[in-house]
Amino acid sequence: MSHDLHTEFMALAISLAKQGLGKTQPNPVVGAIAVKDSVVIGSGFHAKAGKDHAEVLALKEAGAGAKGSTLYITLEPCGHVGKTPPCVDLILSSGVTKVVVASSDPNPLVNGKGLAVLRSHGIEVVEDVLRLQAEALNTGFFSRMTKNLPYVRSKIASSIDGRTALANGDSQWITSEASRQDVQQWRARACAILTGVGTIHKDNPRLNVRNLDESDQPFRVIADTHLSIDPEAQILKQKNIILMFCNDPHNKASQLEAQGVRLIPITSKDNRIDLEVLMQQLASLAFNEVLVESGPTLNGQLLELGLVDELIIYQAPIIMGGNANPLFHHPIMTSMEQKIRLKQIDIRQFGEDLRMIMQVIKA
Amino acid sequence: MSHDLHTEFMALAISLAKQGLGKTQPNPVVGAIAVKDSVVIGSGFHAKAGKDHAEVLALKEAGAGAKGSTLYITLEPCGHVGKTPPCVDLILSSGVTKVVVASSDPNPLVNGKGLAVLRSHGIEVVEDVLRLQAEALNTGFFSRMTKNLPYVRSKIASSIDGRTALANGDSQWITSEASRQDVQQWRARACAILTGVGTIHKDNPRLNVRNLDESDQPFRVIADTHLSIDPEAQILKQKNIILMFCNDPHNKASQLEAQGVRLIPITSKDNRIDLEVLMQQLASLAFNEVLVESGPTLNGQLLELGLVDELIIYQAPIIMGGNANPLFHHPIMTSMEQKIRLKQIDIRQFGEDLRMIMQVIKA
Repeated sequence: MSHDLHTEFMALAISLAKQGLGKTQPNPVVGAIAVKDSVVIGSGFHAKAGKDHAEVLALKEAGAGAKGSTLYITLEPCGHVGKTPPCVDLILSSGVTKVVVASSDPNPLVNGKGLAVLRSHGIEVVEDVLRLQAEALNTGFFSRMTKNLPYVRSKIASSIDGRTALANGDSQWITSEASRQDVQQWRARACAILTGVGTIHKDNPRLNVRNLDESDQPFRVIADTHLSIDPEAQILKQKNIILMFCNDPHNKASQLEAQGVRLIPITSKDNRIDLEVLMQQLASLAFNEVLVESGPTLNGQLLELGLVDELIIYQAPIIMGGNANPLFHHPIMTSMEQKIRLKQIDIRQFGEDLRMIMQVIKA
Repeated sequence: MSHDLHTEFMALAISLAKQGLGKTQPNPVVGAIAVKDSVVIGSGFHAKAGKDHAEVLALKEAGAGAKGSTLYITLEPCGHVGKTPPCVDLILSSGVTKVVVASSDPNPLVNGKGLAVLRSHGIEVVEDVLRLQAEALNTGFFSRMTKNLPYVRSKIASSIDGRTALANGDSQWITSEASRQDVQQWRARACAILTGVGTIHKDNPRLNVRNLDESDQPFRVIADTHLSIDPEAQILKQKNIILMFCNDPHNKASQLEAQGVRLIPITSKDNRIDLEVLMQQLASLAFNEVLVESGPTLNGQLLELGLVDELIIYQAPIIMGGNANPLFHHPIMTSMEQKIRLKQIDIRQFGEDLRMIMQVIKA
């Protein structure tokens, strides 16, 4: 089979995998297709942790026809027992003769082992077909497995002159309805949305996904060093709320817990919450992708610590003038050599705004 | 003749007109084509004030063949005597039977009169073919004729976080070589480049056009309220330098004049140079297009006064951090209703940077 056909079928598997985005935490999204004589005879995607893996669904649909077929999987199949039996065993028993994978599994329990078992049983294995596209779907899962950190996106709405709110806090609305609508997909895709208590004080936001059940909402995580949050804040009236704090000088913890908020103590550093520890904590909560929606202080601190992987900036064609708030209060630079470089990933128009997706190039 | 052919020939006339950009001051750029039986029999563009007008060149080339031809002109022909005889007379004597124009002349001495004379002599006149495109070529001339102000572009190099220099002044280099090369065309096109003395103190720039003779350089105009410029500044060692000032507490004027600098006193307002008067002065010097290359103080003041027509922002994919200089120190806003709206005209990539051309929407 030509490489072009491999690419075509893998693209189909990737489009299936995408259907699981934002729903499979802590698992990666995966899509799979069984193909025989260039005809798709089975397909599936992982929809939720604990449910069937993608390759299981594809082989179930293929049934006896799987014998002699080629299986396309966006991620290397697992060879260990997790919440479900290992997929490698099923592949071996199904009679599949060729397996094409896009990306190998970064999970140290899996990495390369699944493919080695398949090869040792005489199955032909083709790797790296549309690898980058497949990895991009699981960037958070990969980050967590390899660095014990979530993949962190920071979403910021800005004016052309780099302002995010007036000095008095007014920021409604910088961007167009089309931009604000687009933010919904990033929230829905994230395992957690991180903000600082300053943003809660200032905007009293809900940071939820419109038209999504309470129980399906991403976790909202608030960094609140001294537990200064107002217990009446709108965000606290929802489910899936986590407060990360260092100390509780006003003895609010028990009331907040009674409201259903989960409280997680984090060590402090320089008299504020240690953001590296906070991010490691998010990783150990199995959050793959985290969306930051905060002000210039938290955003600047995360940037300074190298904890931001990607910026999503909605830039509106307006000017907000001389004393409005900037995107970042940190870092403070004394030489242009210290500038932080970004890599443009995607630029497009939303209404009158530009949405720019950029990766932070780490030194 | 169909409208499509009118458009096609006018596009050709416009492309001829463009060859005069930056060279015809104080005149507008103009292109003209004489066409007979769908064949171009003469063409020309205005190359320099005092030289032949475009329509004169086209008709000269057409010679006796002009009789019965159609003349395409990007701007209404003049009916008054300037440095050259009126073009309308030549058109009448040439035997042209139809005249197609793109834009009418905003000069009150001309506006509509040239076309009226042609019509009164039985010549068919078609107006507004590619009008907007033709007007865009002479935006500065139109502004000066209708508002007694030049068309003011401000060029700014910025980071993604809206910073234009570090707190210590370092700004080399924010943008790519491709962006800096592109700036050359805007300088060459401008009649004058305006900057503040602060930029001279900080960067000691020349603000010249590379590979262009001294005498062909645009005028460099420096706003310097108290004549605080260092007489050794690089920019003062060139030709075509104008200093606009309010007072001379250090008695530098005579030395500067001896260096060949032209000094123009401007009234002050709130203890700084009155920028509206300065702009009117630039208009009365017959500068059609002015390019501002300055820091956040002058840029912000011009913006606040509504004296900026267009922003050309080269935005580099870098972050310059928390205490670097912004694009504008003014205006100061207290409500989002006061935001200044921009209209995106053009967005494109230069190296890794984005160049955004935006018009300031005046209230």
